[in-house]
Amino acid sequence: MQKLDVDLGDRSYPIFIGTQLLTQSELWTPYIKGSQVMIVTNETIAPLYLEQIEKALAGKQVASVILPDGERYKNLDTLNLIFDGLLQQRHNRTTTLVALGGGVVGDMTGYAAASYQRGVDFIQIPTTLLSQVDSSVGGKTGVNHSLGKNMIGAFHQPQCVLIDTDTLNTLPDNELSAGLAEVIKYGLILEPEFLSWLEQNMAALLARNTGVLAQAIQRSCETKAKVVAEDEKEAGKRALLNLGHTFGHAIETHVGYGEWLHGEAVAAGTVLAAQLSHRLGWITSADVDRVRAILDSAKLPLRPPAGMTAEHFIDLMAVDKKVIDGQLRLVLLNALGDGVVTADFSESMLRATLSDAVV
Amino acid sequence: MQKLDVDLGDRSYPIFIGTQLLTQSELWTPYIKGSQVMIVTNETIAPLYLEQIEKALAGKQVASVILPDGERYKNLDTLNLIFDGLLQQRHNRTTTLVALGGGVVGDMTGYAAASYQRGVDFIQIPTTLLSQVDSSVGGKTGVNHSLGKNMIGAFHQPQCVLIDTDTLNTLPDNELSAGLAEVIKYGLILEPEFLSWLEQNMAALLARNTGVLAQAIQRSCETKAKVVAEDEKEAGKRALLNLGHTFGHAIETHVGYGEWLHGEAVAAGTVLAAQLSHRLGWITSADVDRVRAILDSAKLPLRPPAGMTAEHFIDLMAVDKKVIDGQLRLVLLNALGDGVVTADFSESMLRATLSDAVV
Repeated sequence: MQKLDVDLGDRSYPIFIGTQLLTQSELWTPYIKGSQVMIVTNETIAPLYLEQIEKALAGKQVASVILPDGERYKNLDTLNLIFDGLLQQRHNRTTTLVALGGGVVGDMTGYAAASYQRGVDFIQIPTTLLSQVDSSVGGKTGVNHSLGKNMIGAFHQPQCVLIDTDTLNTLPDNELSAGLAEVIKYGLILEPEFLSWLEQNMAALLARNTGVLAQAIQRSCETKAKVVAEDEKEAGKRALLNLGHTFGHAIETHVGYGEWLHGEAVAAGTVLAAQLSHRLGWITSADVDRVRAILDSAKLPLRPPAGMTAEHFIDLMAVDKKVIDGQLRLVLLNALGDGVVTADFSESMLRATLSDAVV
Repeated sequence: MQKLDVDLGDRSYPIFIGTQLLTQSELWTPYIKGSQVMIVTNETIAPLYLEQIEKALAGKQVASVILPDGERYKNLDTLNLIFDGLLQQRHNRTTTLVALGGGVVGDMTGYAAASYQRGVDFIQIPTTLLSQVDSSVGGKTGVNHSLGKNMIGAFHQPQCVLIDTDTLNTLPDNELSAGLAEVIKYGLILEPEFLSWLEQNMAALLARNTGVLAQAIQRSCETKAKVVAEDEKEAGKRALLNLGHTFGHAIETHVGYGEWLHGEAVAAGTVLAAQLSHRLGWITSADVDRVRAILDSAKLPLRPPAGMTAEHFIDLMAVDKKVIDGQLRLVLLNALGDGVVTADFSESMLRATLSDAVV
């Protein structure tokens, strides 16, 4: 078992990574302060892991809310189901919410915890690769709006993050690939050696080699924890973690939430970011090929969805959270392993990149 | 014009109190950092003051959202109308929301600001006595849930609070009275001399004597600012500001949001708190009479709504935010002018107090 720390002063917390952690109650239940616990999960995960979690919480007043599964339910209406459960079970300000599931469950549970009675504790137990390497760490929580992804939310840090790599055994292949998009991201923005390591180990990752997966998760969480500790509220460096995301969010909003997995949209967005970086002369065409090759080897899409136009992108990206007074900023690449948040590109360059890429 | 400061470190902000402040743009528009402003108001206030505010904001990219008027609209659905407006107008993270209206508009706008893109700035321009003396100051924001009032929200401090006492000229009499319930509260929990002053000046307050009203508002804001500065997130002393509110919230939830004004419910709740304090031997029956007399002189209700039983109260109060691990805490009175947050009462004493009071 590995333990990493996210260093945020009085909001610091540990990330535990290992096998058979769900049932090791002595490891994570000390992070529950009160007697009430509300487990939030979804209809896919509940039959697999809910009972184990309930057993680990024996002695507490435990209740659960089971949400429908999917990004298209990540909205205020579904959020309200969590509040319904909390109020029906009379949970008070000392309750702890437990997010048991992927990124959608984690983001919604975290936002419910941020908002219920103006803020209660929560614990992240991510069960998908994507949530283990990215969304469960760092305190970004929220829901989607029909006009923009993750537009409603809060920064709210968990009490701890429990990553049981055994949960990946039940993960569908396309979700494993989607998680790898975020893993590759860390290599591209900050860690050139990790990028090479990923290229060498992609086959083992796809074959779900336990040790290799655990290494990839640990390295990803270390990178994320470091960035978040430096810039919790995304005043600067943290925006780097959004490589491919501005394009990706536009794809997700355009096709309808849940039609593409988040990681799939990020992969296609990452290729666009690489192509724009090349058009600006910052990276070579061989670099772009290398970006495409590693994403392709992870069985991820390399192009936007059929029918999505440059205009669609421009329109949807106008409300991105990185827009400052009308000026869109993007995460681009100075080199592979060296990302930058920048507005230093012309709209015509962006349009040309999009027009070339769309099908 | 008076200026008070709410001292909260890097979240400190000023409260401006005076006449003809809405149009003094040089006073408050410097607190707007970006170029985008979204005014949130309601259908009652918009025809009265929206144009003045828009004029004061000349030069900014100004849009507005006009909500339906009333506590029954203080929910997630109405909140989403604010997000709709922000996204349709493509407001980004540098936008500033302006809450123009009473407590409902202020609470919802503040929560929208806390949540939009995980947090943007907002300014409070309260137009009711209740919001001027209480809800606009201190950063409590949120919406109601059908099972409990203010159960969903955030602590999010405004950039400044602009109290233009001229707006009280258009306030209905029952809303003036409702605001006085919160003014009287400050006297009862912390300021015995202010309580005496209010008894002497109640006629002038009800006659809307400008100078006397301004004094009452200033004194109320001073008290609130002091308490909030000591205990922003209500770990302790701030809960004192909830005198009458646990009972009052139960009344509001029971009768249906908007059937009783918040201040009316707080008044009836304050009498219950006084009666329980007397039953515990902490204050005299003459003290209870004095509490009833001042609330009565402010034309406020002294009893719970007809048909509401002790059981209704007990049931609804179980989810109050001051409940800690199943133990209800209430704000009671050691003396007039000396409130205390306490669990030091038996359920039978509480039940007896409620049973005696209900009609």
